[in-house]
Amino acid sequence: MTVETQTATFDSLPLDSGATLAPVEVAYETYGRLNERRSNAILIAHAFSGDAHAAGVSREGGQTGWWDNMIGPGKGFDTNKYFVICSNVLGGCRGTTGPASLNPANGEPYGGNFPGITVADMVRLQKYLIDHLGIERLLAVAGGSMGGMQALQWAVSYPGSAAAVLPIACTARHSAMQIAFNEVGRQAIMSDPDWRDGQFYGRALPARGLAVARMVGHITYMSDESMRQKFGRRFREKDGPGFDFSADFEVESYLRYRGSQFVTRFDANSYLYITKAMDYFDLAAGQPSLAAALAPARARFLVISFTSDWLYPSYQSLEIVSALRSRNQDVAYCELPSNYGHDAFLVEVGEQTDLVRGFLDATFRQVNGL
Amino acid sequence: MTVETQTATFDSLPLDSGATLAPVEVAYETYGRLNERRSNAILIAHAFSGDAHAAGVSREGGQTGWWDNMIGPGKGFDTNKYFVICSNVLGGCRGTTGPASLNPANGEPYGGNFPGITVADMVRLQKYLIDHLGIERLLAVAGGSMGGMQALQWAVSYPGSAAAVLPIACTARHSAMQIAFNEVGRQAIMSDPDWRDGQFYGRALPARGLAVARMVGHITYMSDESMRQKFGRRFREKDGPGFDFSADFEVESYLRYRGSQFVTRFDANSYLYITKAMDYFDLAAGQPSLAAALAPARARFLVISFTSDWLYPSYQSLEIVSALRSRNQDVAYCELPSNYGHDAFLVEVGEQTDLVRGFLDATFRQVNGL
Repeated sequence: MTVETQTATFDSLPLDSGATLAPVEVAYETYGRLNERRSNAILIAHAFSGDAHAAGVSREGGQTGWWDNMIGPGKGFDTNKYFVICSNVLGGCRGTTGPASLNPANGEPYGGNFPGITVADMVRLQKYLIDHLGIERLLAVAGGSMGGMQALQWAVSYPGSAAAVLPIACTARHSAMQIAFNEVGRQAIMSDPDWRDGQFYGRALPARGLAVARMVGHITYMSDESMRQKFGRRFREKDGPGFDFSADFEVESYLRYRGSQFVTRFDANSYLYITKAMDYFDLAAGQPSLAAALAPARARFLVISFTSDWLYPSYQSLEIVSALRSRNQDVAYCELPSNYGHDAFLVEVGEQTDLVRGFLDATFRQVNGL
Repeated sequence: MTVETQTATFDSLPLDSGATLAPVEVAYETYGRLNERRSNAILIAHAFSGDAHAAGVSREGGQTGWWDNMIGPGKGFDTNKYFVICSNVLGGCRGTTGPASLNPANGEPYGGNFPGITVADMVRLQKYLIDHLGIERLLAVAGGSMGGMQALQWAVSYPGSAAAVLPIACTARHSAMQIAFNEVGRQAIMSDPDWRDGQFYGRALPARGLAVARMVGHITYMSDESMRQKFGRRFREKDGPGFDFSADFEVESYLRYRGSQFVTRFDANSYLYITKAMDYFDLAAGQPSLAAALAPARARFLVISFTSDWLYPSYQSLEIVSALRSRNQDVAYCELPSNYGHDAFLVEVGEQTDLVRGFLDATFRQVNGL
């Protein structure tokens, strides 16, 4: 299916920091049809470097969506039954207002003057979009990694406005290690002289720093085992050491390539602002416990994690499950076997599809009293 | 005990690359006394960023050695009984010939013209030093991380010249993930405009790149659990988000501090050359199997790994143990419980001390026919 990205504009958005963004634009795509009762809408929240183009083939560029293996006719998120919505997050660089957007105050890109944001701010803007689409209650909100954090935030920011919540390969609070890896990426970018405190638009991009940041990210998305299977110790051209600092090993050239590619499609300032939002994410902040923080939630939960995901390990999903169970909330949990590490939620879609399909089907019947 | 670093000079050292270094200097320290039979000498090989100052208090700077909790009177490597030697590795920046040394060809620092090196080259230079000290056969060679790789290399490069080999928290071949993390560090350094293809001496140092590289390293030396215990999500000054890119979290300021400190004591080119040597390390290269590669070894082995070490996981130590056992070689293996990750070999010295002491004692009695 060919899809087009649309845009909705809102006068202003208040942020957790106390600042206000005005105006604010949201880039989004939809797949499938909204039914008459408006009871079949599912919001998909994307991960750190994702965008609104979750499924189908883009009319402009011809690219396939980042979760096309999960969203479409007959797929896990079945567009024959459901109306699926995906929007680019606040602070992003793929159509939604972010650091590269023009600051109405001076007509220049915000750059380093973009206000700090949180996952709750991202979700607030998504709620504006859902209201704008005339949807009172979502059937479900789902996402992996940072998308899962947004799904959890929906459950507490807007209790009851999603019948089901599917947090996949995520956490209720960023850990010291997760913060640490993000901080390395930020330092790589901010150390690049071309970053210029974020005011690099129209000049040289901080490409070297952003590429290094992406390389670190890629390692954390894979697993020791998947890297062994994909690259092992294979040398690139020669069958032995080159005794210089060109890419000797396939894994080196892969990382260099992915780093250089990322620079062509992602904004270095969005990298800074979005990773900070992830690091700030702590659902239990200011609450006696995670269970107390999740107490207002009124939804069915399906929590999924993957065995080889060491960036968002299963114990972090189990914290969410225990917190929900301790208040007797409706939660199902599955840990799926995979060697793909954190990337598993994007590629290991066999069992994930069955789980999601069954869970959505039961939710839909419940919501529509079938 | 106060100690001083000494230096030995050799006319030339042939390298695996085919190049030759001439002359070559080795910085080393010794602790304890060599006995009359010269049968109590133990060589300690240091890890990536270590140096010759393994124990005692340096006369110059007053610093305590990096493994002082393991080496000294009554300690695991008991200097009342043994003569312990530690030298800075080839390619290092703490007294042994490396990229910052003067190239006799032009009287300038080698910089990027330093020849590529391997772990076997490092060990070849150590053998020169041991011969120079008049020691025909070492009682043991031991080390953690890259030091363990050197110990393994000793076992195959100079069979029988060490009665015992103690590879700790290491591997017989660098994995794709280990290469990947090193490559990120190298890219961070080489992306720094101040690196200037390695010819930065007497000019600005590639400090930003080297600091980022060290930050990545530090994360891999810790564990999710140890970072949680040490930092958690504690904010630094404010008790909440600062909504900017200063260090909000303690883990951020810790990494920034360690990165900036490292720059004052380590050479960016040594970082490149030594990490490449680690990545090239594959004891089984050109051999039908690791067992075949280790077949020439004539030593008793004690292999140690740590439960939370995800950078050099226990399965990599078990590969070494299986390879040795398959040829019926004398090998003992212990996996020690620890939350400290890869750093455990430096800090979790309780059980490690008992293991090493007993193993060395048995080896000494065997060697001296007691």
